[in-house]
Amino acid sequence: MQILVSEVGPRDGLQSVKRAMPTQAKHDWIGALAAAGIREIEVASFVPAKLLPQMADAAEVVREAAKIPGLTVLALAPNLRGAQDAIAAGAHKVTMPVSASEAHSQANLRKGVDAAIDEVRRVVELRDSLPAGSRPGVEVGISTAFGCTLQGEVPEDFVIAVAGRLAEAGVDSIGLSDTTGYANPAQVRRLFRRLGALVGHRMGGAHLHNTRGQGLANVVAALDVGVTTFDASQGGIGGCPYAPGASGNIVTEDLVFLLESMGFDTGIDMAKLLAAREVLKAGLPGEPVYGHVPDAGLPKTFRPAAAGAA
Amino acid sequence: MQILVSEVGPRDGLQSVKRAMPTQAKHDWIGALAAAGIREIEVASFVPAKLLPQMADAAEVVREAAKIPGLTVLALAPNLRGAQDAIAAGAHKVTMPVSASEAHSQANLRKGVDAAIDEVRRVVELRDSLPAGSRPGVEVGISTAFGCTLQGEVPEDFVIAVAGRLAEAGVDSIGLSDTTGYANPAQVRRLFRRLGALVGHRMGGAHLHNTRGQGLANVVAALDVGVTTFDASQGGIGGCPYAPGASGNIVTEDLVFLLESMGFDTGIDMAKLLAAREVLKAGLPGEPVYGHVPDAGLPKTFRPAAAGAA
Repeated sequence: MQILVSEVGPRDGLQSVKRAMPTQAKHDWIGALAAAGIREIEVASFVPAKLLPQMADAAEVVREAAKIPGLTVLALAPNLRGAQDAIAAGAHKVTMPVSASEAHSQANLRKGVDAAIDEVRRVVELRDSLPAGSRPGVEVGISTAFGCTLQGEVPEDFVIAVAGRLAEAGVDSIGLSDTTGYANPAQVRRLFRRLGALVGHRMGGAHLHNTRGQGLANVVAALDVGVTTFDASQGGIGGCPYAPGASGNIVTEDLVFLLESMGFDTGIDMAKLLAAREVLKAGLPGEPVYGHVPDAGLPKTFRPAAAGAA
Repeated sequence: MQILVSEVGPRDGLQSVKRAMPTQAKHDWIGALAAAGIREIEVASFVPAKLLPQMADAAEVVREAAKIPGLTVLALAPNLRGAQDAIAAGAHKVTMPVSASEAHSQANLRKGVDAAIDEVRRVVELRDSLPAGSRPGVEVGISTAFGCTLQGEVPEDFVIAVAGRLAEAGVDSIGLSDTTGYANPAQVRRLFRRLGALVGHRMGGAHLHNTRGQGLANVVAALDVGVTTFDASQGGIGGCPYAPGASGNIVTEDLVFLLESMGFDTGIDMAKLLAAREVLKAGLPGEPVYGHVPDAGLPKTFRPAAAGAA
């Protein structure tokens, strides 16, 4: 069985690192990730450069990434304007932020949940206005789906209601994000099961954090209920998982090891993925990178899924 | 549903730390763990003090721990002589090492797998010779059950055959240990399913390592196939999981958080468990301790299983 690992480091990771990675270094890293077999990369965020100077080169990064054969290029856009720019640059998919917590939505987007969904609707209309064949995918990963550091509990019924409204709005893929590192495997199974029952083939990926060490445990739970796309960031970049405010993304290297060891084919070559890690490090010298598998090494018994391990 | 967390720090952890924790500090730590609701602790190893000076006070530690009401006191004994001493000191259960890898068995015990099983048989005979009511439990966690750094692949059929011979020998509880941090969730499900089918109620716990970041993912898999006992070490002591030769025990605090969040009742109070961590640190000043949950803190939404979360 194939599983899609969607690399979010160049966007989610780099926007959390204080200094900006030079544009050429981004090209190199994205190229190395693609060469390792990563088939989908979230490469940039289309927000004003004043807010996120690390993403000032978003259009250039998307344009360059879009030249890589076989790679699906994702860009984050918080609004219609950003989506227009992302599409103009050649992004294959636009991912938009919608939160299931009013408090988080206000803090993160300066608008409420309803207004965020309205913005998504405008981007869907933009997509539909484009000629068939040149329409980008529109994705949403619902933030704080498993709880919110501001609001606390996020009712599961509300998360599912938001998903339903997004499906009605015409979003192609609706995933769930554990923005705060609050999720547990029982909750992951429950929510993705409900999501799949409601939106069927529009069920998107799991964006899980390792803030409390539960990231891969939650991946196992999501696999059980049919999730086939997982976000991760190389080296876990996006801040130390121990630091307050850290993103705590699950580490791509550890995720790919998990999946391949279990017999899920990711299409990713572990040796080349570790080589891409060196390219990342060269682009951000001195920045801490994480990962158990890179530190401990592969087991003697490791065989990639395509080689027939299970 | 109840899950037993079996704390192995005072034995497995402390024997991997170079300096010896003072005996009084061991008493304090074990007391604090028990006060947090930990119902089973592996407190010592009965090996010659020349080999493991950290365990020179094994008898005294067992005697003191056995005074704690409701606590099951485990001791490791590599042979009959060690088992006699452990039982004399008042251990409720004796756990014995048997490896599924000949190479590891020779390296670790200086005897082969057959000879290790013979030694277990002698301890079972000793148990049976004692008056009913004073018979200790005899446990084995089969080492390198998921692969060996020396031998590489460990055939699953061989692991299961060893388990069968141990059951025939009269061992009360037969678990599986991922000594090398090689296990993946698919393998964990497969092997524990076979173990349970073969030995039924004698199926013991899972001793999983986090060397490659897969520890809690493997716990989720083991829970799926009916495993109800998990080893862990407070603060993950037993060496840095990144260092070569590290034990990489899963961290008790992170495990308890996982289980309680999922709705499994461990009987353990998280706040008191974190207090015990401070007692550990005081007993081994300067020694690194690990754990994502202690570093990140509990989520706002956390409710222990007994409070009705799921």
